[in-house]
Amino acid sequence: MTLPSPRAVQQILDPLFPGLMGVRLVTLEPERVVAELVVRPDLCTAGGILHGGAYMAFADTLGAVGTVINMPQGKRTTTTDSSTKFIGGARVDTTVTGECVALHRGRTTMVWQTTIRSDEGKLCAVVTQTQLILD
Amino acid sequence: MTLPSPRAVQQILDPLFPGLMGVRLVTLEPERVVAELVVRPDLCTAGGILHGGAYMAFADTLGAVGTVINMPQGKRTTTTDSSTKFIGGARVDTTVTGECVALHRGRTTMVWQTTIRSDEGKLCAVVTQTQLILD
Amino acid sequence: MTLPSPRAVQQILDPLFPGLMGVRLVTLEPERVVAELVVRPDLCTAGGILHGGAYMAFADTLGAVGTVINMPQGKRTTTTDSSTKFIGGARVDTTVTGECVALHRGRTTMVWQTTIRSDEGKLCAVVTQTQLILD
Amino acid sequence: MTLPSPRAVQQILDPLFPGLMGVRLVTLEPERVVAELVVRPDLCTAGGILHGGAYMAFADTLGAVGTVINMPQGKRTTTTDSSTKFIGGARVDTTVTGECVALHRGRTTMVWQTTIRSDEGKLCAVVTQTQLILD
Repeated sequence: MTLPSPRAVQQILDPLFPGLMGVRLVTLEPERVVAELVVRPDLCTAGGILHGGAYMAFADTLGAVGTVINMPQGKRTTTTDSSTKFIGGARVDTTVTGECVALHRGRTTMVWQTTIRSDEGKLCAVVTQTQLILD
Repeated sequence: MTLPSPRAVQQILDPLFPGLMGVRLVTLEPERVVAELVVRPDLCTAGGILHGGAYMAFADTLGAVGTVINMPQGKRTTTTDSSTKFIGGARVDTTVTGECVALHRGRTTMVWQTTIRSDEGKLCAVVTQTQLILD
Repeated sequence: MTLPSPRAVQQILDPLFPGLMGVRLVTLEPERVVAELVVRPDLCTAGGILHGGAYMAFADTLGAVGTVINMPQGKRTTTTDSSTKFIGGARVDTTVTGECVALHRGRTTMVWQTTIRSDEGKLCAVVTQTQLILD
Repeated sequence: MTLPSPRAVQQILDPLFPGLMGVRLVTLEPERVVAELVVRPDLCTAGGILHGGAYMAFADTLGAVGTVINMPQGKRTTTTDSSTKFIGGARVDTTVTGECVALHRGRTTMVWQTTIRSDEGKLCAVVTQTQLILD
């Protein structure tokens, strides 16, 4: 398997929702995708903390990227399910890191789990998602 | 209970993540919040369909708004959990509607469920979230 | 579509986990399955309330039954995901009712949601599950 | 913190739903609970594989035990949310092992994740749950 570079995938993401949010891919490995997100004011909810929806969109992006780089050519994927536990807040003007790890890479489904941590390494959220592989 | 107007809440949301996405509140009732979202290209994933993360962020916004308008003054809320089933895609340049309904409005937790439908009324996603009420 | 009778399906369930728990099918319709469960002491957790796992197993049964009665012959199904919000307790020696409704019945996936209520109609739990349809 | 022995907790569980299922506690540590479950025929679904509900009830038990051994005296806990990804089947007459690890142990909420594996170490299911701590 030849993996694309983070830069190549970044160029695909940039005109899309991850680009609007500022998701920056850092690492692409077969079972692990890492990215960063600056907590801009326009990604926050009231009180200057990262909006819960931004956590979920950040993670959904990583799980989809992880699936795509593991799929046979000609297949496509869709998230069927995503479950998030919110654990801690991330303050505006900090950076969060998402590490997405494959729990399962099957032919029909893949399961990815993204752990989002603050600058200081504090656990912010855990997102677990199922990706269906389609012809 | 005096509910704020959708316009008043919209002004709070506009500088935040829901504003970046273009979430437009339509209806605010004690047990029901309705909003619209135009599927802009920069809210999409590859293939010109609404990004899964945008569904989740849209719904998270509505569940939080529903909780806030039901909370006693001086309290605050955080989402502890959100679970999404993705059912159908929404095409770029269409509009989706999210209807968020209270399943439970307790003193300690509230549970809200958002159903997102396409222009033609097709079911796109169902998001169920728990909000914790904090002092 | 000819639906099996609740009694015929009950006979299949009785030697299995739903039988151990005492799940009793009441209604089988194409988009709706209803069943009852007596809150026996050995289905409880500490404090004499129905164990959270019993809610989930009860609901998983109903969603699977709903899927099976909607599948083409020769197909099989597996739950890929289940998400539960626990809202209220059910006391020992009462009966809970689970009503499972189809949110989506597609060729590849179905999504079912089970609402569990107490004797007095109080909401106890909401379980939403995705069923994958396999060849 | 003085932890109870697995045997002491087992005696509490035995008359309850975990006892009906045959859950056997193996290890109790502050951030980790391990248990086994024999896949009896009456824990199965059609086809002789462990019922999805049994996975969830098994995990719910471990997360609750983990929470209880971490709570201050006089507090109580309830599961508010549980999300399960089903990944592989476990055959009748085998034994599955559940390892439940704390993702978060706060004063108001705890988050526990249970990974269930087959005899051969194959991943069967991942269950993530939120426990609310109440006065």
